Amino acid sequence: MPQQPYLVGLIGAGIGPSLTPPMHMAEAKALGLDYVYRTIDIAELGIAPTEVGRLVRSARTLGYDALNITHPCKQLVVAELDALDERAERLGAVNTVIFTERGAIGYNTDTSGFGTAFRTGLPGAGTAEVVQLGAGGAGSAVADALLSQGTEHLTIVDVDPARAGALAHSLADRFPGARVDASEPDKLSVLVPASDGLVHCTPTGMADHPGLPLDPALLHAQLWVADIVYRPLDTALLQAARDAGCRTLNGGHMAVHQAADTFALVTGRSPDVDRMFDSFTRLLGAEAR
Amino acid sequence: MPQQPYLVGLIGAGIGPSLTPPMHMAEAKALGLDYVYRTIDIAELGIAPTEVGRLVRSARTLGYDALNITHPCKQLVVAELDALDERAERLGAVNTVIFTERGAIGYNTDTSGFGTAFRTGLPGAGTAEVVQLGAGGAGSAVADALLSQGTEHLTIVDVDPARAGALAHSLADRFPGARVDASEPDKLSVLVPASDGLVHCTPTGMADHPGLPLDPALLHAQLWVADIVYRPLDTALLQAARDAGCRTLNGGHMAVHQAADTFALVTGRSPDVDRMFDSFTRLLGAEAR
Repeated sequence: MPQQPYLVGLIGAGIGPSLTPPMHMAEAKALGLDYVYRTIDIAELGIAPTEVGRLVRSARTLGYDALNITHPCKQLVVAELDALDERAERLGAVNTVIFTERGAIGYNTDTSGFGTAFRTGLPGAGTAEVVQLGAGGAGSAVADALLSQGTEHLTIVDVDPARAGALAHSLADRFPGARVDASEPDKLSVLVPASDGLVHCTPTGMADHPGLPLDPALLHAQLWVADIVYRPLDTALLQAARDAGCRTLNGGHMAVHQAADTFALVTGRSPDVDRMFDSFTRLLGAEAR
Repeated sequence: MPQQPYLVGLIGAGIGPSLTPPMHMAEAKALGLDYVYRTIDIAELGIAPTEVGRLVRSARTLGYDALNITHPCKQLVVAELDALDERAERLGAVNTVIFTERGAIGYNTDTSGFGTAFRTGLPGAGTAEVVQLGAGGAGSAVADALLSQGTEHLTIVDVDPARAGALAHSLADRFPGARVDASEPDKLSVLVPASDGLVHCTPTGMADHPGLPLDPALLHAQLWVADIVYRPLDTALLQAARDAGCRTLNGGHMAVHQAADTFALVTGRSPDVDRMFDSFTRLLGAEAR
């Protein structure tokens, strides 16, 4: 077990606005734990993403207990670790490193976090036919979670057909019991009406990418809609989905659950996820003012 | 100003038993500050002392606010910093590094700490004639403080005459208004009876170096005696000095004041030195049990 107080960092580029550090610190304070969480922004520091291995080793030397890893280092860090958790190995991406007696161990709480968010936030949601928009890093983690939770037929749609195809191929290999296809945006008019659920994993709807990722007329009351965008928390997609009578899940749930899962790995303590969600919405609200 | 919570480390070899980290953490807690203090033991980590510059740079990258530096890196670190405080520059030794917008700045709170301990713990002590036993790293810092506080004639005695001579020479250069001599242990029978004060800066009297550093018959009631050994706090030398009627200053005062001075540099807050001394004696007492 790491010694108290805990020392944790986030390595990535452009991470100043990340809410993960204050979420961790607020939860630690509520639990009475001494917990320091530092932001190590490689873009600000002028450090190349390929130097992530050196940073991870230095952090261990300098007494860090754990690290979160984010864009653009989640794949690069994999080769620099001593062991990988099963999910991180399957994904080839790590967002959490825990320093233990056995070395630096990589985990992926993006996928476990989305899995828990989906299970608890949309209980009983149908998973026979699911369409996913977006095949990037976040999309990989979300698709892994959906298939781990029994999705029978997952269709990956991306503006880059090659990227959608590569992800679908890799997922089909890892989940032989499921059917995974790649498709293109112009097929959404056929796909969405026949689906149980729609997951959105592109930046569309964020403050600097406003708009909707698909024609809202395709949404129907039998569809659930999950968004992973959380700035804003209530995206134009979720608003349109509610107007269409859909059950919805906002992106805050994945953000909070990934932080909660990492917090539990670091401390061995179960965080209060509702309290973390409250911290998260308060932090988002403070930004908006 | 560094962001709160504070992240501070101690770099050195064999530093597991150092009381500096818990002293800092206890004072921060009493002041309601979030403060993490990590011990980076290069002997345990298998890192060469000459690697201290790399460690300092990594610590800055990884969000440390400050470092304490101890044996065997106090001199080695000097060349790795962006600027030096006047005292650190004069001594050629740094025990505190503060990371600021202007870079990594080196300080020496061993010398400021002994100075304050001496001034407040032995107010009005005569400084016309002072004998110092020990010309090592701690002795250099103590002699600098004594001369800064107006010692007129300082005689440095060491079992290694070359080391005593080198320190005396360097001090005479830096303090042209004072007289600084080197001498040898067999001259103590002449030196001590004619002195106002005696400062002890060798390991003799520590648990693993028991005994007295000089013949106690030389001690006399007009002499003040300061020891920098603090394990135990009440050394055989201090006991003999009290028996001879001397005013005394134990080694805890320097240890606490160096920690207090570093704490103030890190946080910009004035620590409660009496409370830090209480923490220190409680920590020492806990060790003894």
